[in-house]
Amino acid sequence: MKRTAFFVSDGTGITVEALGRSLLAQFEHTEFTYVIKPFIDSTDKAARLVEFINNVHKEEGIRPVVVDTIVNDDVRSVLETAEAFTLDIFSTFLAPLEQELGSASSYSVGKSHSIREDDKVYKDRIDSVHFAIDNDDGGRTRHYDKADIILLGPSRCGKTPTCLYMALQFGIRAANHPLTDDDFEYGELPKAVRHYKHKLFGLTIDPVRLANIRNERKPDSRYASLRQCEMEVDEAELLYQRFGIPYINSTHFSVEEISTRMMDEAGIERRAAPK
Amino acid sequence: MKRTAFFVSDGTGITVEALGRSLLAQFEHTEFTYVIKPFIDSTDKAARLVEFINNVHKEEGIRPVVVDTIVNDDVRSVLETAEAFTLDIFSTFLAPLEQELGSASSYSVGKSHSIREDDKVYKDRIDSVHFAIDNDDGGRTRHYDKADIILLGPSRCGKTPTCLYMALQFGIRAANHPLTDDDFEYGELPKAVRHYKHKLFGLTIDPVRLANIRNERKPDSRYASLRQCEMEVDEAELLYQRFGIPYINSTHFSVEEISTRMMDEAGIERRAAPK
Repeated sequence: MKRTAFFVSDGTGITVEALGRSLLAQFEHTEFTYVIKPFIDSTDKAARLVEFINNVHKEEGIRPVVVDTIVNDDVRSVLETAEAFTLDIFSTFLAPLEQELGSASSYSVGKSHSIREDDKVYKDRIDSVHFAIDNDDGGRTRHYDKADIILLGPSRCGKTPTCLYMALQFGIRAANHPLTDDDFEYGELPKAVRHYKHKLFGLTIDPVRLANIRNERKPDSRYASLRQCEMEVDEAELLYQRFGIPYINSTHFSVEEISTRMMDEAGIERRAAPK
Repeated sequence: MKRTAFFVSDGTGITVEALGRSLLAQFEHTEFTYVIKPFIDSTDKAARLVEFINNVHKEEGIRPVVVDTIVNDDVRSVLETAEAFTLDIFSTFLAPLEQELGSASSYSVGKSHSIREDDKVYKDRIDSVHFAIDNDDGGRTRHYDKADIILLGPSRCGKTPTCLYMALQFGIRAANHPLTDDDFEYGELPKAVRHYKHKLFGLTIDPVRLANIRNERKPDSRYASLRQCEMEVDEAELLYQRFGIPYINSTHFSVEEISTRMMDEAGIERRAAPK
């Protein structure tokens, strides 16, 4: 079965798309075509979208699925006229919440409540991005005292994207430092991080996967050889164990999973919330 | 009124937190304390969480709010025993979806459907992060032919975080190039980007805000002076207009908003979906 699904929002559409996809992924027998419609924040835009949805209905002979997180009542009323099967997140949950909390929501009194971050939180996120870039890959080490966390690991096991994700999404100041042959030879932590043992978190990875990743960058090099990758991964894990550094295997995890698991395990406090 | 709200997930908790916060933000008269509980993926973990929730209930004398996106039926059954007001996203929406789609969901047949990205999509995201770093701030320009979009703008108006966000969230290869006094003097686009006019997108910003941002970095410099910022912003906007380059004012927008608006306006196709 084929079917079109619309994810509609008056904002960026990021939350409704993530939620809608995870809901519809539960239906393996239907093949969905996803259409994302952000910034539907006026009745005019909603009316044009309704026309579009109705055309899809006509063409496909089956009504599309619409998942929306529109706050404004007037805009929602227009969207509701579409020939579609609609899951309306706000109207579904706000009525029971109103009853439980014993007060009307801004939503139900027709006031569009903008969920803007305050400037301080946003600034923390952007500053953390620049912090991650400035303190990437051991290039600069003198700001480790300001880091919330310092990631360790062999080259290309995911340190940089993880640091940037934690910065962007949670406003966490994450630095990262490579582990190299020198460290392995002496069986010691890199000098620059020794004073920050409580901030360290290790990454490890399946050596075959690491070799694949490195081969794309430097084909047929010693750096990318399976033998070298195996050695680095083994030695890195030994170092983590010897110095009691918590670590995580990134092979089957996305940056979302690595980041949230680390934060959970290390008890790192967030400065910003996902949106 | 004070109240504790739990956002519970068997995965990272990112979606449920974003959704939960936007729902509860509609209730201005209740002051929520948020507790995020990711990776509740076993009945054991759920049982320990129920105990925690019940303790909060006892201490505060009012039952907490729980918003959850747990897929597994057994785990959910345990969570449901908590003394809390629970909004269960999956069970709420899957029943009506099953009826509409005429098939059972993996969820209702008790199968935990892992929503993993395939490797190709994930690789696109990580490659895009490295692309953004390698092609940041005009430092290297020879890969612009591989860029999906090239951001222009004065220093510190938000180019780098926006590029990284598009990379991480959507797998988009975004480069960025600064606009400098030289470009303004000749009223021309930087040489390196002239051949890629169709890929260009400009950023502009309120000069007062730009001066504030720059002052934190280089206090009392010419670079951070309001006069310099005003000049640069004016000239940048003139360039955009002269060459028909679409642009966006980043002053009141987050990276989420800037990114999704750009992608919407430029019609850039995503390689990955938000999670």
